Amino acid sequence: MPHLLDSFFSPASIALIGASRDLEKIPGRLLSMLRKNEFPGKIYPINPNYGDIDGLRCYPSIADVGQPIDLAIVIIPARAVLGALEQCAAAGVRNAVIISSGFAEEGGDSAAMQDVIAELAKKTGMRISGPNAEGFYSEAQRVAATFSPTVDVKPDAPRLIATRRRIGIVAQSGGIGFAIYHRARALGIALSYVISTGNESDLGAGEFFEYMVQDASTDVILLFIEGIRDVDKFLGGARRAAETGKPVIVTKVGRSGAGERAAASHTASMAGWSAAYDAVFAKYGFIVSNDLDEAVAIAAVLTTNPMPKGDRVAVLTVSGGAGIWGADTVSMLGLQVPELSAPIQAEISKLLPSYGATRNPIDVTAQGVHSGGLQKSIDLLDVSDEVDAILVVLSLSVETRMPFKQAELKPVLDAQNKPIVFYSYTLPSGFARDELAASGAVVLSGLTHVGVALRQMVQRARFKLAPPVAAAASPLRDLSAHLKSPTLSESDSKALLRDAGIVLPDEVLVTEKSALDAAIARMGFPLVMKIQSHDIPHKSEVGGVRVNIATKGEVFLAYEALLENARQHRPDAAIQGVLVGPMAKKGVEIIIGTMQDATFGPMIMVGFGGITTELFRDVIYRPAPVSAAEATAMLAELKAAPLLSGFRGAAKADIAALAKLIAQVSTLAADFRNQISEIEINPVLVHPEGQGITVVDALVVPKAR
Amino acid sequence: MPHLLDSFFSPASIALIGASRDLEKIPGRLLSMLRKNEFPGKIYPINPNYGDIDGLRCYPSIADVGQPIDLAIVIIPARAVLGALEQCAAAGVRNAVIISSGFAEEGGDSAAMQDVIAELAKKTGMRISGPNAEGFYSEAQRVAATFSPTVDVKPDAPRLIATRRRIGIVAQSGGIGFAIYHRARALGIALSYVISTGNESDLGAGEFFEYMVQDASTDVILLFIEGIRDVDKFLGGARRAAETGKPVIVTKVGRSGAGERAAASHTASMAGWSAAYDAVFAKYGFIVSNDLDEAVAIAAVLTTNPMPKGDRVAVLTVSGGAGIWGADTVSMLGLQVPELSAPIQAEISKLLPSYGATRNPIDVTAQGVHSGGLQKSIDLLDVSDEVDAILVVLSLSVETRMPFKQAELKPVLDAQNKPIVFYSYTLPSGFARDELAASGAVVLSGLTHVGVALRQMVQRARFKLAPPVAAAASPLRDLSAHLKSPTLSESDSKALLRDAGIVLPDEVLVTEKSALDAAIARMGFPLVMKIQSHDIPHKSEVGGVRVNIATKGEVFLAYEALLENARQHRPDAAIQGVLVGPMAKKGVEIIIGTMQDATFGPMIMVGFGGITTELFRDVIYRPAPVSAAEATAMLAELKAAPLLSGFRGAAKADIAALAKLIAQVSTLAADFRNQISEIEINPVLVHPEGQGITVVDALVVPKAR
Repeated sequence: MPHLLDSFFSPASIALIGASRDLEKIPGRLLSMLRKNEFPGKIYPINPNYGDIDGLRCYPSIADVGQPIDLAIVIIPARAVLGALEQCAAAGVRNAVIISSGFAEEGGDSAAMQDVIAELAKKTGMRISGPNAEGFYSEAQRVAATFSPTVDVKPDAPRLIATRRRIGIVAQSGGIGFAIYHRARALGIALSYVISTGNESDLGAGEFFEYMVQDASTDVILLFIEGIRDVDKFLGGARRAAETGKPVIVTKVGRSGAGERAAASHTASMAGWSAAYDAVFAKYGFIVSNDLDEAVAIAAVLTTNPMPKGDRVAVLTVSGGAGIWGADTVSMLGLQVPELSAPIQAEISKLLPSYGATRNPIDVTAQGVHSGGLQKSIDLLDVSDEVDAILVVLSLSVETRMPFKQAELKPVLDAQNKPIVFYSYTLPSGFARDELAASGAVVLSGLTHVGVALRQMVQRARFKLAPPVAAAASPLRDLSAHLKSPTLSESDSKALLRDAGIVLPDEVLVTEKSALDAAIARMGFPLVMKIQSHDIPHKSEVGGVRVNIATKGEVFLAYEALLENARQHRPDAAIQGVLVGPMAKKGVEIIIGTMQDATFGPMIMVGFGGITTELFRDVIYRPAPVSAAEATAMLAELKAAPLLSGFRGAAKADIAALAKLIAQVSTLAADFRNQISEIEINPVLVHPEGQGITVVDALVVPKAR
Repeated sequence: MPHLLDSFFSPASIALIGASRDLEKIPGRLLSMLRKNEFPGKIYPINPNYGDIDGLRCYPSIADVGQPIDLAIVIIPARAVLGALEQCAAAGVRNAVIISSGFAEEGGDSAAMQDVIAELAKKTGMRISGPNAEGFYSEAQRVAATFSPTVDVKPDAPRLIATRRRIGIVAQSGGIGFAIYHRARALGIALSYVISTGNESDLGAGEFFEYMVQDASTDVILLFIEGIRDVDKFLGGARRAAETGKPVIVTKVGRSGAGERAAASHTASMAGWSAAYDAVFAKYGFIVSNDLDEAVAIAAVLTTNPMPKGDRVAVLTVSGGAGIWGADTVSMLGLQVPELSAPIQAEISKLLPSYGATRNPIDVTAQGVHSGGLQKSIDLLDVSDEVDAILVVLSLSVETRMPFKQAELKPVLDAQNKPIVFYSYTLPSGFARDELAASGAVVLSGLTHVGVALRQMVQRARFKLAPPVAAAASPLRDLSAHLKSPTLSESDSKALLRDAGIVLPDEVLVTEKSALDAAIARMGFPLVMKIQSHDIPHKSEVGGVRVNIATKGEVFLAYEALLENARQHRPDAAIQGVLVGPMAKKGVEIIIGTMQDATFGPMIMVGFGGITTELFRDVIYRPAPVSAAEATAMLAELKAAPLLSGFRGAAKADIAALAKLIAQVSTLAADFRNQISEIEINPVLVHPEGQGITVVDALVVPKAR
């Protein structure tokens, strides 16, 4: 299906505004790069100072071209950019990419110039990428709209292509975007497009990402993100990628204090809150990678292999030690390296010397290579139902010999049933890369990265996009009566939650001693009593909580004591009363929270009470709302998840009831995002299966108005 | 100081037993490799079938040489090896390396042949490496006693040398040992020796390691271990390396089930228990790395830099995005990326354009490279006391240009005050490698690996070898009376621990109801009562424990109930009685254990009670015995360590008392390694500082006789 940005990425004609004869400077390099990469369309250099450049007619201005122009590349001083863009728009230019810098990244007047550019795009419909961008490169269309040295091709250097599928790269850093391409190219990974998004005055990373998701020539997408601005485009792309099964590998930086500090100024973008990004990535099944080589290795494996059907790996080697290392590496990453069955071992052993190994890892030995045991093992394992992937661990450093014959390997890879991944423990030779590329394989040289790639592939294959949560009832229940005060007490919060349809234990807010008898009659023993005040957010700190109260006498004493403690610790606090409720049955302690992310809006968080949340950071976030099914998946991701499923002989917990609560709280946070800032349920106790949950404490924080 | 193995690694003369003219086969390649690498000593080919090989006189047998021979390289069929070795010994050959395979790795008679070879070495004093080895290579001495293609030098290829210091490699896999060298060489890391240890009939990895520790030409050691056989040599080397501050980077494989399965057969070694290896590595400050490129990156950083004095890193870049990534990476690994002071920022900003960044990460921008801002920043940061290391993040892909001038960079690196590490986000060009090598720098291309290298360096710089635990009193206390039974109950175990000098709560083993009154009188309330029987290891499972007993009546009821429960659940159990003791005060729950490792002997383990041990594997091991100081260091390594130091407003725990207990238990396990198999203290409660500890339950498992 045609897309508006087709004319951006695959222009039939390019105007180069600021073209130059000086090949040492960026404007000159841009023209030279376009021509060296053999751009097949028309090129119109624009510069009033030249009549021609390098045999091409040069035009004084864009208006003088008199031909349709799909893309203008702008590389002139910042103060001249706006004028040039206006001329472009007037001349009907469809797209522009501004390489020039000196805009938002400098602040002040320069930032204001960028705002005007953004306005121009909106007004005229001409789409604008940049400013302060490194441009883009399309390998398939031979468009080198960039000065990056990484696309500076040498005429005599043949391009190694090992993959049947192509990657597309969207990067909020030109340096990194083209570095990803540079490394991918060295491995033989084919490219659709790499784009550096610059300051994103008009076209943003989200829209470029969305383009690649729908683009038929892009099979795997790599994203390098500092902070997403066009969030809706981004989320639209993410959903479509998940629905169509197009893998996305994402690096998000600005995760540390120092990183955030730098991202806030760099290309004038906000790093945002990494946990929210990770939650969105998890929701849409993105593969997160924080290492360049690892990301590229994952891309290599994805562009050369089908998805695995399970997590069982065969490790095939010619070196005992390297095979052990391979088996260790994938095992440590959570994959299986099962011992093979006797029949398949017998089959393999026919071709191996006596000191070979067949159990898995399979050591065919150097002799087994010569006798055909290596190739035969691949053939056997590819059709075996005992493993789901094959990791081949070899030394491919030699420049003249290869352990495979193309005539034998290529047919297997052309019809491969499962991932077959090639790792060399010595540095692979160019010869080995070329030879294996001809069979459709990439040689990888980082064992951990290979292991991570296989594990990520297994996870991606298992990923299922959660169906959207059913739209909220319209109109929403009116909770405004609960949200009049700027702060809510536990009692207020619980009243709001009840009104929102969440089941809570029966409790009574006692405001006069005389009401205690009725409360006791309603609740029975044992009881909990808690001071209630908008001014006392942390009740325990003021001696405001009494538990396990078992007699009437204690109830009255506790009532007095709670009020007295509050008066002593917070003399100015307005006291609402004392909340009297039943002691909860025992259960697994869970914390549920919601908060609002500046980029992605409402988020839901779940973790265990106690030390796992704080000491081991064992919490899971998702964009709110989530369904009960998605909440169940969140719970399963917790490292301490076994605590819910019958740990050390305990009863299995009522996960269904907990998941329902999480879904309800998340829906409330999402529906009332304009009125509610945060919800905290801390703790909720999860009882054995079938016995439900008990919300012990809750706090709702209204949004400041 | 001269060492016996000098004649092995730096032989003046080499006999090649099984020399051949056929360069396609290993024997022929061995001779060719020796000559290509320009071995400076004498070479005596031995083969009765030739008069000469390639211009060298060939001898029918070793006896015919009639000259002193430092090293014999043996590459003849397995069944002929022993005879050849006997002739070598008779001829006074000092060392032999057996390349031939067909020994222990094949089992049966072949394994027996290897035993005879080991005997020969012992009897004659001729030192023997292998069989089934890939030999060794000495770069400094130009000894290529190996057929590994990785040392097959091309006459026209100059060797890149970037490091002032040299690595030595000891590998229990020839493939991996030479792969480490191959990768290190590509980075420009200088080598002393790489040796593959093969089946270790006589010379083992431990002894080779010990050699490299004392060897003046080796500055950093890389170990690849499947399983150590010569443990004493290994531990001697480890202690000396720690004492002299020579860094050791170690990879230990056979960590997974599949890896162990393979290691058990491969080169006939045992993988052993990884936790014990890791405990030994931690004790001696080894740097553990489970990735080849990571290990080589660490070696590169160690061979080109002084140790850092702290953990503060300056990230210096020419690309905003890459700088953020660099800052994130080192931050995530636990290093600091502090904002620089105003004066140093002002200094740096003088040389940067307005859109540069000076806070840290420092983005000098492409323009800042030309204006000298990059070099100047390095100069300033190297002498600044605000950071302890500098990470330079660049693109070094171009083959013709460099952001540094050797005349400016080299003097700084020659006198550098702190680590200065160079990372290229694009793939580095050969030109860049050569240029930076000339200034004494290695270009690294894996950002995570660089971050790990810096973090490991910081940790290594902080490492202090624990002083040896004072020798045990001699003779040892006699505990044999406690160890007569094959299993001990809690009561027996505690009696043994008391006798060994460990302080435990006062408790009474009550064997008759009539003794309960006296027990109550002695203990006071509240009480704990526990059934005691050699046949009931898990008391709780049979209803054998009652806690919080507060009245005399309850004591008598509990006594009856405990005996009755035991009779019901274990009718055949021999009951010793009921242990009556005081309820312990509250405290942090800790588990202490000792066990015996097949390779390294007694080990001590510590972890928290509760879920952290089981769900988060948060336990620390060390070889026993440990001092109280070493025990304190173990506790600090626990992820949940904050639980001991006043977590969430709790009192700081009595770490000193706990450390003393750990030391005592470890010493007991070590002193009585021949009588005691395991000790388990589970739990011990650690009370607030100054209030000591309470051992709640304990079990000692005697060694089976």
